[in-house]
Amino acid sequence: MKKTIAVLPGDGIGKEVTKGAVEVLKAVGQCFNHQFEFVYGLIGGGAIDQEGTPLPSSTKQMCGKADAVLLGAVGGPKWDSLPPHMRPEKGLLGLRKELDVYANLRPVSFYESLVDSSPLKREYIENVDFIIVRELTGGLYFGKPSERAQHNGEESVVDTLFYKRHEMKRIIKTAFDIASIRNKRVTSVDKANVLESSRMWREVAEEIAKDYPDVALEHMLVDAAAMKLIQNPKHFDVVVTENMFGDILSDEASMLTGSLGMLPSASLSLEGPSLYEPIHGSAPDIAGTDKANPIAAILSVAMMLRYSFQLEEEAKHVEQAVEQVLSAGFRTADLAKPGQSYLSTTKMIEEIIDTI
Amino acid sequence: MKKTIAVLPGDGIGKEVTKGAVEVLKAVGQCFNHQFEFVYGLIGGGAIDQEGTPLPSSTKQMCGKADAVLLGAVGGPKWDSLPPHMRPEKGLLGLRKELDVYANLRPVSFYESLVDSSPLKREYIENVDFIIVRELTGGLYFGKPSERAQHNGEESVVDTLFYKRHEMKRIIKTAFDIASIRNKRVTSVDKANVLESSRMWREVAEEIAKDYPDVALEHMLVDAAAMKLIQNPKHFDVVVTENMFGDILSDEASMLTGSLGMLPSASLSLEGPSLYEPIHGSAPDIAGTDKANPIAAILSVAMMLRYSFQLEEEAKHVEQAVEQVLSAGFRTADLAKPGQSYLSTTKMIEEIIDTI
Ligand SMILES: CC(C)[C@H](C(=O)O)[C@@H](O)C(=O)O
Ligand SMILES: CC(C)[C@H](C(=O)O)[C@@H](O)C(=O)O
Repeated sequence: MKKTIAVLPGDGIGKEVTKGAVEVLKAVGQCFNHQFEFVYGLIGGGAIDQEGTPLPSSTKQMCGKADAVLLGAVGGPKWDSLPPHMRPEKGLLGLRKELDVYANLRPVSFYESLVDSSPLKREYIENVDFIIVRELTGGLYFGKPSERAQHNGEESVVDTLFYKRHEMKRIIKTAFDIASIRNKRVTSVDKANVLESSRMWREVAEEIAKDYPDVALEHMLVDAAAMKLIQNPKHFDVVVTENMFGDILSDEASMLTGSLGMLPSASLSLEGPSLYEPIHGSAPDIAGTDKANPIAAILSVAMMLRYSFQLEEEAKHVEQAVEQVLSAGFRTADLAKPGQSYLSTTKMIEEIIDTI
Repeated sequence: MKKTIAVLPGDGIGKEVTKGAVEVLKAVGQCFNHQFEFVYGLIGGGAIDQEGTPLPSSTKQMCGKADAVLLGAVGGPKWDSLPPHMRPEKGLLGLRKELDVYANLRPVSFYESLVDSSPLKREYIENVDFIIVRELTGGLYFGKPSERAQHNGEESVVDTLFYKRHEMKRIIKTAFDIASIRNKRVTSVDKANVLESSRMWREVAEEIAKDYPDVALEHMLVDAAAMKLIQNPKHFDVVVTENMFGDILSDEASMLTGSLGMLPSASLSLEGPSLYEPIHGSAPDIAGTDKANPIAAILSVAMMLRYSFQLEEEAKHVEQAVEQVLSAGFRTADLAKPGQSYLSTTKMIEEIIDTI
């Protein structure tokens, strides 16, 4: 198989972890006899510095033509005081919109060897295995107006939570499709006791559910879901929700596995290339110190193999390599208990490559 | 001291727990020689059934004239399919707006005796002690438009996140005032990398901070905060945030103490009566079974004594009674470990009253 992958390392530790992810893809290519070609582009703060915009049109074009896109992370204090349209995050949000990657999949699974790294007691997290399906190209993130105004001489501000019916339909359908090949349970999260958008979301979910008679649908309020994720995470199979709720709940859920450094994500479109990125950010505090955990980026590559290239065996191979390295006791700084020794980013990548 | 308290038991377990809270106030009145008078009103589902509206004007008037308002909980499946403006929650939201109780205080504290009930490991929650200050009368909860519309023949929906500058100012100021008499740290939570309202929120927070040179201000993104609450809850002293973020984060935080059944709240206005309610809901599944935990409602009464009546000694007395009863090993169903025996709501109330 021959595939072209657009790599956007971005800022901070994004650079360090994508390096590992690319090496892993190369190793997989060698083992399984695939040709992966890599083209590199700018996004975020680096793109602002070099091209004066967080999402250069050359990057957009490159990504549009690729078979899949691998992204590191964007942002950092250096660009924090720029005007809104010039911030690194605008590059990421713009790319998501450009590629129309409406379905952000964030799997949360349990690693026996990491049970000590989790703030939660073993009995709560043992065998946790669910996936958050987050709407990624609508809601408060993109609604207009999003601006200041004057009201009777006083400054005020508005952001807009906006959805069209087809945007709800496609993401909820994606969740049901995933549930069909998992444990056949969808938890749709909303705030239907307050928001009109949530009431429509509930209607659409009920509608889609009719086409999946063997998948059970339940509705849960977002505040209750934020609790349930801690109180009984095993309750969940597939969680589907709108953009902002998904942002908050998936970061919360990442704590179940002990570190944000473990969680990959895939952002799928209906057609065209999909986007793969670790869910962690650019971590300016540890950037450049070779301390980042490359596993989330590496597991994102496993998702790429699975979802973009239908290479299930190869995907599993990468995931198993990660598990083996963890079971062998290797840790990065974020996963180590106080006093426990740990590997640098570079060494952790080497261990995983060797295992592959 | 003579005070009139408007009691709105509401629906489901709201009725059962406010009964306990009223008994506690009576007991405190006897011990400390205060006269508490109680007037009762309808709200939520019960008000819909009897008066055809979730917030009868008689209830509004009664609350407006009282020295403080005690609320149970509203809602239940019976009223779930009513049109939005006729839902029980509209009663609660309407009352918050009517009383202008913009500052919702949700303290989260550690109970040594409940460490087994928490999903988190002891070392993470030991001595946790922070307070969430949630804006309660603005944002997505009240912004207009909140409605369906047609866009090129397709149904769409909009909700509006709207704030005026003075609304941000007063809530952030409240947080700083509270921090001044606590550990002098404010964490302001927003999503400034995406929302314009959050960028304005950050500006206002910086502005207010200037008047409190001895209080440290930090900004945290809401997704990061959802993580940090689990990863290192001891990090926090005072957390201040807008309405929807506060709803989600405070329910999440409730899991640190093991049960939503433990958490009280106070909703303060600049002038006029304040509103006290447990943060849990009406729990239709256990309503009528005498299984509810009355402690959140009872601790809400302690907050009333403290914030509305400036009766600090009396407030502490109630809080200590709760602690004693828990230390003595008494539990309600939500707090009991599997196999552990527990008290009914009625018996738990009796134990607490006896201790007072
Ligand atoms: C960087 C930020 C804009 C982004 C988001 O909120 O979507 C991030 O938190 C994420 O979850 O991918
Ligand atoms: C019942 C509901 C409208 C309410 C809210 O969202 O404010 C509740 O969840 C709360 O937190 O008090």
